[in-house]
Amino acid sequence: MDLAVLAQRLAEAGQSHLLQFWDQLSPEEKEDLYSELESMDFTEINGFFENAMMTFTQGHQENVDARMEPVPREILGSVTRDVESLKDWEEEGLHCISQNKVAVLLLAGGQGTRLGVPYPKGMYDLGLPSHKTLFQIQAERILKLEQLAEKHHKAKCCIPWYIMTSGRTMDTTKEFFSKHKYFGLKDENVIFFQQGMLPAMDFNGKIILEGKGKLSMAPDGNGGLYRSLGAHRIVEDMERRGTAYIYVYCVDNILVKVADPTFIGFCVRKGADCGAKVVEKTNPTEAVGVVCKVDGRYQVVEYSEITLATAEKRSPDGRLLFNASNVANHFFTLPFLKDIVNVHEPQLRHHVARKKIPHVDTRGNLIEPDKPNGIKMEKFVFDIFQFAKKFVVYEVLREDEFSPLKNADSQDGKDNPTTARHALMSLHHRWILNAGGHFIDENGTRMPAIPSLKDGTDLPIKCEISPLVSYGGEGLEEIVKVHPEFHPTLVIDERGIHEQVSNGL
Amino acid sequence: MDLAVLAQRLAEAGQSHLLQFWDQLSPEEKEDLYSELESMDFTEINGFFENAMMTFTQGHQENVDARMEPVPREILGSVTRDVESLKDWEEEGLHCISQNKVAVLLLAGGQGTRLGVPYPKGMYDLGLPSHKTLFQIQAERILKLEQLAEKHHKAKCCIPWYIMTSGRTMDTTKEFFSKHKYFGLKDENVIFFQQGMLPAMDFNGKIILEGKGKLSMAPDGNGGLYRSLGAHRIVEDMERRGTAYIYVYCVDNILVKVADPTFIGFCVRKGADCGAKVVEKTNPTEAVGVVCKVDGRYQVVEYSEITLATAEKRSPDGRLLFNASNVANHFFTLPFLKDIVNVHEPQLRHHVARKKIPHVDTRGNLIEPDKPNGIKMEKFVFDIFQFAKKFVVYEVLREDEFSPLKNADSQDGKDNPTTARHALMSLHHRWILNAGGHFIDENGTRMPAIPSLKDGTDLPIKCEISPLVSYGGEGLEEIVKVHPEFHPTLVIDERGIHEQVSNGL
Repeated sequence: MDLAVLAQRLAEAGQSHLLQFWDQLSPEEKEDLYSELESMDFTEINGFFENAMMTFTQGHQENVDARMEPVPREILGSVTRDVESLKDWEEEGLHCISQNKVAVLLLAGGQGTRLGVPYPKGMYDLGLPSHKTLFQIQAERILKLEQLAEKHHKAKCCIPWYIMTSGRTMDTTKEFFSKHKYFGLKDENVIFFQQGMLPAMDFNGKIILEGKGKLSMAPDGNGGLYRSLGAHRIVEDMERRGTAYIYVYCVDNILVKVADPTFIGFCVRKGADCGAKVVEKTNPTEAVGVVCKVDGRYQVVEYSEITLATAEKRSPDGRLLFNASNVANHFFTLPFLKDIVNVHEPQLRHHVARKKIPHVDTRGNLIEPDKPNGIKMEKFVFDIFQFAKKFVVYEVLREDEFSPLKNADSQDGKDNPTTARHALMSLHHRWILNAGGHFIDENGTRMPAIPSLKDGTDLPIKCEISPLVSYGGEGLEEIVKVHPEFHPTLVIDERGIHEQVSNGL
Repeated sequence: MDLAVLAQRLAEAGQSHLLQFWDQLSPEEKEDLYSELESMDFTEINGFFENAMMTFTQGHQENVDARMEPVPREILGSVTRDVESLKDWEEEGLHCISQNKVAVLLLAGGQGTRLGVPYPKGMYDLGLPSHKTLFQIQAERILKLEQLAEKHHKAKCCIPWYIMTSGRTMDTTKEFFSKHKYFGLKDENVIFFQQGMLPAMDFNGKIILEGKGKLSMAPDGNGGLYRSLGAHRIVEDMERRGTAYIYVYCVDNILVKVADPTFIGFCVRKGADCGAKVVEKTNPTEAVGVVCKVDGRYQVVEYSEITLATAEKRSPDGRLLFNASNVANHFFTLPFLKDIVNVHEPQLRHHVARKKIPHVDTRGNLIEPDKPNGIKMEKFVFDIFQFAKKFVVYEVLREDEFSPLKNADSQDGKDNPTTARHALMSLHHRWILNAGGHFIDENGTRMPAIPSLKDGTDLPIKCEISPLVSYGGEGLEEIVKVHPEFHPTLVIDERGIHEQVSNGL
């Protein structure tokens, strides 16, 4: 340890306060703090802070509303409005997959804080009949998609799965996958890498201490992806494997169509280098970001940046003008991603999130502030849309593809385990009906397609179909032909059909 | 009491079992049972049963899906697609109101069973800052509308309010209004009348006993309205008052625009004799009835009657083909209503609702069945669309006009006091923003137009504006000009602006 050199560097960066409790630290604490500080580039961090605060202030001065334009129809593909093209796009996507051209990139750096668990969200047991986790569901979707592509194009293929964790979740995540034998995938095709961290800072740019010898650190946002891809030479690994197209998504969406062949095929056919999947926003005050053009470039405008008047604007057809809700499902070509990592990433400024950040006072006592006292700096995965040469948007149905798990169950809660579970079971119920099947209640009567509400609680029919049986509803006709009527709880998996009559009479 | 005559009538109607416990009844019980049975027309009731069961069986044989057609654009008015006409329609509606041509008909026969209270829903304290009930909110909207019409057209006017209660709710409802001095309305303009009741029957047409001397009775559905209007000569009362147009609605919608002048004006301008207000259905499996044409006639098809394939059908523009969700807000001309009451009502068959109906066994023990053992017979208020000569549909925004109170609060619940309260406060928040106002948080910072979600719970800014101040968002500009920034909880009422800083620092 060369404390003098470190102290000098800190002094030059205006961060000397980080050593104010040095004499009170134990030898281990000293070592930890020293090694953390030693590895940090304070010039860079201070630069991040200045740029972020400048953008933040500018953003609040310039009214984004006046500069927003909606997504034009010509760059939009839609599962409801382009029905005649869907089959083609899917074929194209499956073909790309069969040629080993598609890789999947999962953003799983978050901890389950809001969900109320001390481990990564992907490991959460959603309470499904199968008790599968998000990781397992997604792994099985990848497996099934490989099989579908192989069947269509008679060639063995592989979809490599790149999983970005954070410093806090890396070990737990890797252990979980290893313990579950990668859910049937080959371990060499599941590649973990780690997202960067940044310190929280007060409004004057001083790094915040959350303990006498401990900095307040947080992951640098899901847009930290790009820096992290560079640091871990992931793009080079993709090139080595022959990847041409990358499907990026967040871990928390139980309905996510991992490597969705139709979306990929649409993007490829349109010659896009970057694409975003969206669902229609129908309520003006829904708290979602919308994809739009600002000053001629595509971006996501967050709900907090927009006035009510703009949020309420409508097209002549009655739809909201800005209705392309971002669901954090993106398509990139490899050359585009490479350009981002090598050229554009450093140009991206961090976003500022004002937060209540626990910190120690000058006497070393922990303070839990009751108003925002500092900022966290984050990049967003969608910050790079602006660099696309050809950007496209693909609109899908919320009830089919988007139900994120963010929060713990609570009254009037949204995006929680119950809503996620119900969304999946309701989708699988519809798959069975659309394949020609029916559900039968305890009295032997056919249940209506749309379940009635009892006591105001929307209880879907319990029905879960393993991704190993069907990726997106396909292939169920044969099962239903032999077995047209089912009792809930129904589980169909690779071992067969399981009916568990609940409260049977 | 002439028991022999009654027994003879019962025998002829196949309902002799109703007297099976006669000898075990107390004198009072005998009197009650005798007088109830004496007043009943068993031939008519048996006829209802036969017709209802026939329709029920037919309905299940004939596939309604194949015969459904969507609402054509030419009979549709829309707040989002006909923006340029809204002002005209509103003017027309206000003019009709100013000429005393508009009456309001409230369906309030239900008890608060699902809501979990032993009194009518209209009397429920919704937990708003003002603690107003649904009855009070609706009364004040009528009052305000009278004032707006008077201001526009310089003439005193009155909107008579006809309130249909049931046998079980009449006295409580009347007392509540009287105690609250009719919320500022004139008592002679609030007219109560009572809905009919029908016995529950088993599948063989036998009337069900819920006690040794007590029939199982239930209101005859909100479509019982028409028979009841006849029985109480309400149409004649309307004629006497000069009513030309009637606005019908259910008590449970906290956002209901009672006597909505724009809807009325639209119907009048279109020369319609019958109109229905709808909101757009966006999720195929939402449990709502949709307005559509069946065999060339308009009706509401209930969610339980329709297959998933039909529910999922879409127009080329991507919207659901059957997207006109009924919200039980209707417009009738007086001649149309008169025709219904005098001519068509008897042609309407009852709908069958299979229910678990508590009943006594042959030894008089009360049985709570665990599967449906009988039916309740109900007519629906929308059963009469088929008789319209010119039917129109008016589409409004759900977030502005529809949030029904049906259930008690519960996890993942819908249509409960919390959702109703939030819907009202969110609407009033938007009124303030659109008038040019802003909300300020405890740190003095302007709050964003779209509130962020905390812990997954969508907590709206607490803001309530009395109907006596604004009927539909109008007239707030002057207030906001003087007072542009507000702290929640904000209440604006006829006495002024009230801000109550919660957890202020």
